[in-house]
Amino acid sequence: MKSMNNENLSMLCDFYEFTMSNGYFKNGFYKKRVYFDVFFRKIPDDGGFAVAAGLEQVIDYIKNLHFNDDDIEYLRGKKIFDEGFLNYLKNFKFTSDIYAIPEGTPVFPNEPVLTVCAPAIEAQIIETFVLLTLNHQTLIATKANRIVRAAQGRAVLEFGSRRAQGASGAVDGARAAYIGGCAGTACTLTDKLYSVPAGGTMAHSWIQMFDNEYDAFKSYCELYPDNPTLLVDTYNTIKSGVPNAIKVFKEVLLPQGKTKCAIRLDSGDISYLSKKARKMLDDAGLTQCKITASNALDEYLIRDLMMQGAKIDIFGVGERLITSSSSPVFGGVYKLVAVENSFGEIVPKIKVSENTAKITNPHFKKVYRYYDNESGKALADELCIYDESVDSSVPHTIFDQNATWKTKTLTNFTVRELLVPIFKNGECVYELPSIDEIAKYCKEQIELLWDEVKRFENPHTYYVDLSKKLFEIKNMLLNIYGNN
Amino acid sequence: MKSMNNENLSMLCDFYEFTMSNGYFKNGFYKKRVYFDVFFRKIPDDGGFAVAAGLEQVIDYIKNLHFNDDDIEYLRGKKIFDEGFLNYLKNFKFTSDIYAIPEGTPVFPNEPVLTVCAPAIEAQIIETFVLLTLNHQTLIATKANRIVRAAQGRAVLEFGSRRAQGASGAVDGARAAYIGGCAGTACTLTDKLYSVPAGGTMAHSWIQMFDNEYDAFKSYCELYPDNPTLLVDTYNTIKSGVPNAIKVFKEVLLPQGKTKCAIRLDSGDISYLSKKARKMLDDAGLTQCKITASNALDEYLIRDLMMQGAKIDIFGVGERLITSSSSPVFGGVYKLVAVENSFGEIVPKIKVSENTAKITNPHFKKVYRYYDNESGKALADELCIYDESVDSSVPHTIFDQNATWKTKTLTNFTVRELLVPIFKNGECVYELPSIDEIAKYCKEQIELLWDEVKRFENPHTYYVDLSKKLFEIKNMLLNIYGNN
Repeated sequence: MKSMNNENLSMLCDFYEFTMSNGYFKNGFYKKRVYFDVFFRKIPDDGGFAVAAGLEQVIDYIKNLHFNDDDIEYLRGKKIFDEGFLNYLKNFKFTSDIYAIPEGTPVFPNEPVLTVCAPAIEAQIIETFVLLTLNHQTLIATKANRIVRAAQGRAVLEFGSRRAQGASGAVDGARAAYIGGCAGTACTLTDKLYSVPAGGTMAHSWIQMFDNEYDAFKSYCELYPDNPTLLVDTYNTIKSGVPNAIKVFKEVLLPQGKTKCAIRLDSGDISYLSKKARKMLDDAGLTQCKITASNALDEYLIRDLMMQGAKIDIFGVGERLITSSSSPVFGGVYKLVAVENSFGEIVPKIKVSENTAKITNPHFKKVYRYYDNESGKALADELCIYDESVDSSVPHTIFDQNATWKTKTLTNFTVRELLVPIFKNGECVYELPSIDEIAKYCKEQIELLWDEVKRFENPHTYYVDLSKKLFEIKNMLLNIYGNN
Repeated sequence: MKSMNNENLSMLCDFYEFTMSNGYFKNGFYKKRVYFDVFFRKIPDDGGFAVAAGLEQVIDYIKNLHFNDDDIEYLRGKKIFDEGFLNYLKNFKFTSDIYAIPEGTPVFPNEPVLTVCAPAIEAQIIETFVLLTLNHQTLIATKANRIVRAAQGRAVLEFGSRRAQGASGAVDGARAAYIGGCAGTACTLTDKLYSVPAGGTMAHSWIQMFDNEYDAFKSYCELYPDNPTLLVDTYNTIKSGVPNAIKVFKEVLLPQGKTKCAIRLDSGDISYLSKKARKMLDDAGLTQCKITASNALDEYLIRDLMMQGAKIDIFGVGERLITSSSSPVFGGVYKLVAVENSFGEIVPKIKVSENTAKITNPHFKKVYRYYDNESGKALADELCIYDESVDSSVPHTIFDQNATWKTKTLTNFTVRELLVPIFKNGECVYELPSIDEIAKYCKEQIELLWDEVKRFENPHTYYVDLSKKLFEIKNMLLNIYGNN
């Protein structure tokens, strides 16, 4: 029996990457330098933006990319791969360039969030892992940010490990949730690996282990007098849980001069129970005691609880965050956008498709984001060809590619290039920010979006435009390939 | 920067397991032998049954369970744990008993799928990982089985790695999908680790890499003349893709005496395109050429495609399978059901809760499944106390716990105990079946369910009854704790 732990994740790769790569090796295409974009077409929950996440784990993967003897032996056993190719894989490492939008940045459909410029085999081999990592963490960071926004400043804790889709779903998901704005996690390994603060106090089993609830609470507060959270719904929240918690806080904490404490509601009607519990705590003089709620919460339920004046200070969110249950797929794709010919020229490529929404934006591109100097807000993004540049000291006109008569001339603006170099000739040239820096940056960047883009339902569509040059090249390619 | 690969998954544990365990260590409860059940309350997609999966990875985890110096150092840094407890963790291993229902078995709400009998700390430490592993794989095996049933005997391939929720979501998910009935996966690592057959041919990038589609197809068929699958929708399926595929199959394969081949449709209206392509292939004499379809498929779309007479031989299913997107959470829980007192007596425990659906079935239990000898079909499951046993040579009466007047007396029946010993005193006593044996067993067991239980919508509710003795103990405990 084998376990995924200690396994070489370089083999977490769709099998067709190997069949194609073997082909490129045999037909000589493997020397061809190609350009792939990662981009997505739809925002989960029909939201107004996504939160980029997962880049650090992509970097880690690329740095460690290799095939060991065991992997080669496995592939040889398939009896379809050329020995020359297997030998090539044995010495394989990533030698090329990657650009990406930093983690925590709000990102929008149809813009590259990551671009790979590499020989064909290198670009192909990394596809599956790059996509799954960015898709997963971007999904969870985006969902976490929705939930955090619904909580309007109250802390949101990630509690979902047990309902996550596998071990990395839990561990990396909790990392992404922190980027999206969560205050911490229940997952110990995420703390150990990624410095996301982990916390937790008791399950119902703690209470049941004792002869009665009072003894269980008392023992816990004696052990952890600094800010204990007591779970009050094992038997009956209002008749038993809250009164026992009040009694124990008064008997154990106050004599020690400790005042920080909390109760946790995990079942029943959270709105009703929180108001009732708040009154009981206040009447007992425990106005500083916080109330944590956790029970199938998400942004919609939290929004409703807030509207109803529920007395909740901290939200513990589990399965609906860690699986993004109302929209559990982030559909990032990996598409060839250009190929270098034998003269070193970059030749743009397009994928046409019967579904017009699946038509790609060709070419090696830059992504510019424009900010209005007066309001400070982000105005629009623009995709340009790699050799274009924008001068913010002169007026700049952008237009809607689906309605070319709609133009907007930017005057008093700041421009920022979003894709930054991550790998150059196989070397990581990107200085990784700390997880706290990423979370802080994410919060700041989202504040630069108009409220209209942040609405949960029917948000305003943020503009992602094409430069005139890119628009013309795309149309030229559509004219060639679109009527095939 | 650290990566989850090579990390000790023993630390994939909710933080409260450590705070509680430290408490049990200090108050002496850690010697107390306790009984925890894993069970679930709801079947994903409101289906009629779930398919148990993930046990092999639980066994692997339990065997490797340990805390290394690095883990202890991390915990010490939290400054809340007793040195005696940290020392205890340093020498920690699982020394106790686990019972479980074998992988591939159809399982139902409120019956234990796994039972742990262990000292309190051991039982608590394993909670998070056991739950997340069983929840994840059971979710995907259950979804895969729905999709496989919709395909009515046509092969279903798992294609979803890139949209999975993290690395283990992809790798372990593809394993679970195979248990549920998929014929293979695109995920290479799942093949290497778990012997689930992986396959794959080409992406759109292969086609785009060449000057034209014909050259791309030709090169591929020359490389892989044994059963190549050509992706025909890069430019235009009917005008370009299918004609080029036909041309290349005839020019490259047939002269070599090779006839096995396939095309893959990945966009557009799959029903229309498959019929059109089938006719073109047949008219060209390629009646043996198979048609694979892949594009946002799930059981509902496959059912509709089948009803419309779509000419599809193989379904490639991605994101909607690997995330179980229409129902992405499997809500297995881990609840204390009994505690041994100082005389070694097993004392049943109950969790009451304001939500009656959250009330647990107390005690250390057995799960019996009854089969009708005439039809061979499964009739009902019954939860009994550990010391009860059922004799199939005498009539046996079962009753509905929610409507006790509804009884049924079984006469000509076979009885099977579902929970089997997995660990005894920390030793694994379970002989692991191969993945193919599990998949075969799963298929056989599902054939023993009535069709009514297998309906996608509003399936018949399979009975999970309580023995009279268990029912009485539960009621007694509810009378004690329910009115607290």
